Amino acid sequence: MEKKGCLYEGKAKRIYETEKPEVLWVEYKDDATAFNGEKKETLLGKGRLNNEISSLIFSTLAKQGVKSHFIERLSETEQLIRRVTIIPIEVVVRNVAAGSLVKRLGFTRGETFHKPIVELYYKDDELGDPLMNEEHIQALQLATPDEIQTMKEKALAVNEQLIELFKRIDVQLIDFKLEFGRDTSGNVLLADEISPDTCRLWDIKTGESFDKDLFRFQQGNLQEGYETIFNRLGGQA
Amino acid sequence: MEKKGCLYEGKAKRIYETEKPEVLWVEYKDDATAFNGEKKETLLGKGRLNNEISSLIFSTLAKQGVKSHFIERLSETEQLIRRVTIIPIEVVVRNVAAGSLVKRLGFTRGETFHKPIVELYYKDDELGDPLMNEEHIQALQLATPDEIQTMKEKALAVNEQLIELFKRIDVQLIDFKLEFGRDTSGNVLLADEISPDTCRLWDIKTGESFDKDLFRFQQGNLQEGYETIFNRLGGQA
Ligand SMILES: Nc1ncnc2c1ncn2[C@@H]1O[C@H](COP(=O)(O)OP(=O)(O)O)[C@@H](O)[C@H]1O
Ligand SMILES: Nc1ncnc2c1ncn2[C@@H]1O[C@H](COP(=O)(O)OP(=O)(O)O)[C@@H](O)[C@H]1O
Ligand SMILES: [Mg+2]
Ligand SMILES: [Mg+2]
Repeated sequence: MEKKGCLYEGKAKRIYETEKPEVLWVEYKDDATAFNGEKKETLLGKGRLNNEISSLIFSTLAKQGVKSHFIERLSETEQLIRRVTIIPIEVVVRNVAAGSLVKRLGFTRGETFHKPIVELYYKDDELGDPLMNEEHIQALQLATPDEIQTMKEKALAVNEQLIELFKRIDVQLIDFKLEFGRDTSGNVLLADEISPDTCRLWDIKTGESFDKDLFRFQQGNLQEGYETIFNRLGGQA
Repeated sequence: MEKKGCLYEGKAKRIYETEKPEVLWVEYKDDATAFNGEKKETLLGKGRLNNEISSLIFSTLAKQGVKSHFIERLSETEQLIRRVTIIPIEVVVRNVAAGSLVKRLGFTRGETFHKPIVELYYKDDELGDPLMNEEHIQALQLATPDEIQTMKEKALAVNEQLIELFKRIDVQLIDFKLEFGRDTSGNVLLADEISPDTCRLWDIKTGESFDKDLFRFQQGNLQEGYETIFNRLGGQA
């Protein structure tokens, strides 16, 4: 496979075309951003860790029957993925209260929900990724009711798999964000990344964060936290 | 009926007990507040206008088969209502984009929705009445799924009636907020008020606001706008 022109560059990744129109080449960057781009830094090794962890997770999910855009890991910082048209909705699943849910709705940090909460956010940097309901999504014509249903069901299935995967390495899955896209046949496919940038991951015993909160709230060394996840997942340091 | 001790005082009304435990006595105040209490003023005559308009609207709805807590108008500023336990959810119905929907989600002000949008906000002044979804409501144990369904259906039924009521007086119903409560048998009853404090009402020809936006954005005289609604509805000036 050959890397062609850059299709777009986001906050965490660069996406390139390949000679196959349906295949894209992803390069994970070392850039860290938070609070909608207000906080920004370059953290050496972050791109590698996210690419490795995301590749491991998507491969594991595939073995468990959860399809995604992931094709294969190419290098420490690169992957091949199936091209989709991203649906501009961030699907968030929460098992335990943290982050904006505590601030916005008054939940107690660390509180476990009886059943996971699914939230839908408008993926729009200018608007600051606001929370939406399904009627907003229909009015904005972002997705059909069927697509919303599919995304919510897939997100909950991913949650079941990820909870188990992380439990095995003594990590509690607090919450995470997924993105989905439509392939050329209109199928809704899990896309983007699953990494400590997009999950909240706490040590099951100490409650220590191994995720982007390390960067958001300057709680410690981000790379050390991500490396812990990578190592426990069985990757080479 | 006799007015007893004050049960509580809100931003717009004082609620008193009566000798009947299931009946409350409401006094509409002249206080105007906006932006979660940040902007505050006393506007002479506002209490009368809201009480008169709310009484007229609840009476009209009752004739059309939509039950509410409203029992009767007592005076220019007072009503008798059935006591309920308020469910701390503000149910907002929107026919046309305005206000927070424009700012938060990028809709164009004045854009008409194909079907009305129902939103659920947490009635909590400290949190600033944040938007919620139904899963948040269940996690917070604010209402059961059945109660949420009932509130949404009733809100849409009220919307149908109000659209017609206002159309007859050349006013377009843009959006409005409802509150519901549980009576002693656990039935969900429409409560609180329906007034220019809780609706956006635009002149059907000029687009002029006759509602609290007059106060929010200092666009004109609030009492004049509310008086226009009251007069057009057939009340005595
Ligand atoms: N399979 C895919 N096909 C096309 N675009 C994708 C795919 N997976 C992810 N993307 C998009 O790639 C872009 C770059 O990723 P990222 O750097 O994380 O961007 P952002 O700044 O939007 O978070 C994002 O818009 C993301 O939605
Ligand atoms: N039928 C009812 N029974 C009991 N409480 C009610 C009823 N209708 C409205 N209320 C409540 O009366 C309180 C006073 O009203 P208001 O001044 O509008 O308060 P707020 O400042 O919360 O908007 C509110 O908490 C409202 O929910
Ligand atoms: Mg991203
Ligand atoms: Mg009120």
